[in-house]
Amino acid sequence: MENKLSTSPYKGTTDTYPEDMLTNNYIFDTWKSVAQRFGFEEYDTPLIEETALYIAKSGDEIASTQLYNFVDKGGREIAIRPEMTPSLARMIAAKKNDLTLPLKWFNIGKYYRYEKPQRGRRREFIQLNIDILGIPTLEAELEIFQYILAVMEEFKAPKETYEIRVNSRYLLDYLFEEILRLSEEKKAKVGRAIDNYTKLGKEAFVEYLKELELTEKQINSILEFLNSTLEDLKKIADKSDGAKQLIELFAKAEELGLTNIRFEPSIMRGLAYYTGTVIEMFDIGSKENPRALFGGGRYDDLLSMFGQEELPAFGIGWGDTTTRDYLETYGLIPETKTDTKVFLPLFDIKLYAYIQKIAKGLRTKGINTETQLTAIKFGNQLKYASKKNIPWVMIIGEDEINAKKVQLKNMETGEQNLVTLEEAIETIKS
Amino acid sequence: MENKLSTSPYKGTTDTYPEDMLTNNYIFDTWKSVAQRFGFEEYDTPLIEETALYIAKSGDEIASTQLYNFVDKGGREIAIRPEMTPSLARMIAAKKNDLTLPLKWFNIGKYYRYEKPQRGRRREFIQLNIDILGIPTLEAELEIFQYILAVMEEFKAPKETYEIRVNSRYLLDYLFEEILRLSEEKKAKVGRAIDNYTKLGKEAFVEYLKELELTEKQINSILEFLNSTLEDLKKIADKSDGAKQLIELFAKAEELGLTNIRFEPSIMRGLAYYTGTVIEMFDIGSKENPRALFGGGRYDDLLSMFGQEELPAFGIGWGDTTTRDYLETYGLIPETKTDTKVFLPLFDIKLYAYIQKIAKGLRTKGINTETQLTAIKFGNQLKYASKKNIPWVMIIGEDEINAKKVQLKNMETGEQNLVTLEEAIETIKS
Repeated sequence: MENKLSTSPYKGTTDTYPEDMLTNNYIFDTWKSVAQRFGFEEYDTPLIEETALYIAKSGDEIASTQLYNFVDKGGREIAIRPEMTPSLARMIAAKKNDLTLPLKWFNIGKYYRYEKPQRGRRREFIQLNIDILGIPTLEAELEIFQYILAVMEEFKAPKETYEIRVNSRYLLDYLFEEILRLSEEKKAKVGRAIDNYTKLGKEAFVEYLKELELTEKQINSILEFLNSTLEDLKKIADKSDGAKQLIELFAKAEELGLTNIRFEPSIMRGLAYYTGTVIEMFDIGSKENPRALFGGGRYDDLLSMFGQEELPAFGIGWGDTTTRDYLETYGLIPETKTDTKVFLPLFDIKLYAYIQKIAKGLRTKGINTETQLTAIKFGNQLKYASKKNIPWVMIIGEDEINAKKVQLKNMETGEQNLVTLEEAIETIKS
Repeated sequence: MENKLSTSPYKGTTDTYPEDMLTNNYIFDTWKSVAQRFGFEEYDTPLIEETALYIAKSGDEIASTQLYNFVDKGGREIAIRPEMTPSLARMIAAKKNDLTLPLKWFNIGKYYRYEKPQRGRRREFIQLNIDILGIPTLEAELEIFQYILAVMEEFKAPKETYEIRVNSRYLLDYLFEEILRLSEEKKAKVGRAIDNYTKLGKEAFVEYLKELELTEKQINSILEFLNSTLEDLKKIADKSDGAKQLIELFAKAEELGLTNIRFEPSIMRGLAYYTGTVIEMFDIGSKENPRALFGGGRYDDLLSMFGQEELPAFGIGWGDTTTRDYLETYGLIPETKTDTKVFLPLFDIKLYAYIQKIAKGLRTKGINTETQLTAIKFGNQLKYASKKNIPWVMIIGEDEINAKKVQLKNMETGEQNLVTLEEAIETIKS
């Protein structure tokens, strides 16, 4: 080989060493076990789809600039998935008549977007997608809210550090059409500005709206809208479906005793396909994490791109990077430990088969057991077990074999006892 | 939308519906839990790497014809990973000085190869990679053998249906260099032919060797080699390191009581980087599955492409498709069941909040609980629970609320009892 290759991963991606994997798995296992507790079922889709599936949603930033798309060796236009929803829609459209509604489905998978890597945003990311399909009423939203709150509780997240912000695209429609009477083109631009309102700040936001040639009256209406409360929505409940639905949603959430949910008129969601409720969750206890932990909403015309009738749908995509950042900010990541329970050193290669027999017995008893595979210095073997945080070391040399006992060392206290194998198993398992 | 999109997944890939996902997870969870039982640690690598990482191993079929490679929006030559080993090597080379050897690592991830889809082979596949790094002696091989046999035991695989076939690249080197005295070019061609020996059959194999202009003596030597047994290896043990190692390996395997392992001189493995032991596992109880369930071997010069010194390594890549096919052939896939334990119907939307409160209580007790979200006909709700294989239905209407009881229905027997919530929880958990 003439040129040495770089040992860095591709830009915007990460190598996950075992220690980091334990943290990732803590997040993924929590997402998954809570989803199962609510009766959601796991599914999966290919990582590659024909590009047309993403292009179909025109006006979408992802499809135009962030897509990893290319031509395969057979001339097919394909892309690595940047999001789950189009694939989910395709899967459901393909088997619509065989599926019993509602579907409560989740997936934890990888995604690729060509973006500028920065805090909370990478080119490769893992996302939980959790969706309810076939429920037209707000009980779908409430189910997902309950799921989210159950996950946050499992994460031991302090109540004052997070907030689910809720809005309705119908309410925005009412603003754009009935109050502002905007053209389609301006709707998109004003929409993007509102989406960035928190980031831009009021001044830059107003400046931008002026550039769009909005009248002072229009700008004031927008600012008034962005300051409106749930109370204000009651005044327009008979004129706007969005207002009516939001009032109903918050009333039902209160009845269920749900917390950490707030109406926020600036929540917009970039994607073209949302209809009705849109939500995002933020860290509100620190300034470390300005990005949403997840976003989602209702998208009832999911199947139209396959020429099929409407299917009510509500779901969220919950990112790994922002979640890990949030958990780190609040010291909520559990101390990383190995899954291994006991380590068996090796003093002499002649004892290898004997040690393996003991290890096999321990594994049969459900004890995760690692054995030393080469007879090196005992001190180094102990260091290895200690570095890997293995809680027990079971020492077996000629003396122990003759005495039909083992030395069991507690790696935390340093205590060491000569006991029978059965006693050792009992101690390790307790 | 003018044109309806296709609902088919991209060629050679599969949509995984929840029912199939349960089967996949059965395989993945088995791979993972047994790996943890042996003290292996999980890691992960990006799905995309710079193409150079795959091209570096010249002479490799994967890199030249099967790679999904393309240029990203920033002009970088990248590829979707077709195998794990180059990424694993990169990760280790990057942190060599921080890592305590040996490393016992595993990953379960997705891979892409541009191939003709057929039984046991798809363009997208999931593979377990399990490797031991830093052990130069045969104890690494023996550890992986024990892992494989423990997985097969966990799968309840009948002993007479599978076989690990073992060879050594050093033995092949001895054949090519000392016996046949082949040129480098012919070595590669003869190597590929030997790799296909079982598929080709003797006649076509000999024909092909004649085309390569091998002498009759050479051809006879090859045929003799392909018929050689472990006993025959003893005759050349002082001339060939490969023979010596294989004899030692089988002696140690016998000492450990390992079964289902056989010396097979035709095992070759296509990849360029193997050094020493090579293995493959086959279904030997049926003709359904001609492809190897996994393949692997020793690759001690793993880090040379990063300009680093040798690191002993032994590992296998175990495919999902062939494994699922094998398990299906022998009826070893457990009956698919939902993870949900109980279903709560809804008779009137007014009871929704009450039902949710009960559900929350059940989930807190660790019971996976699904609730009906819209009040439809009771019969349809029961049908849904039955179709999803949920074992219990907890019926709560006005009468039950007034009586402070619940109706608990066993969906298998049809038996239904009016009991307290506590009694119901006890029954469901038992």
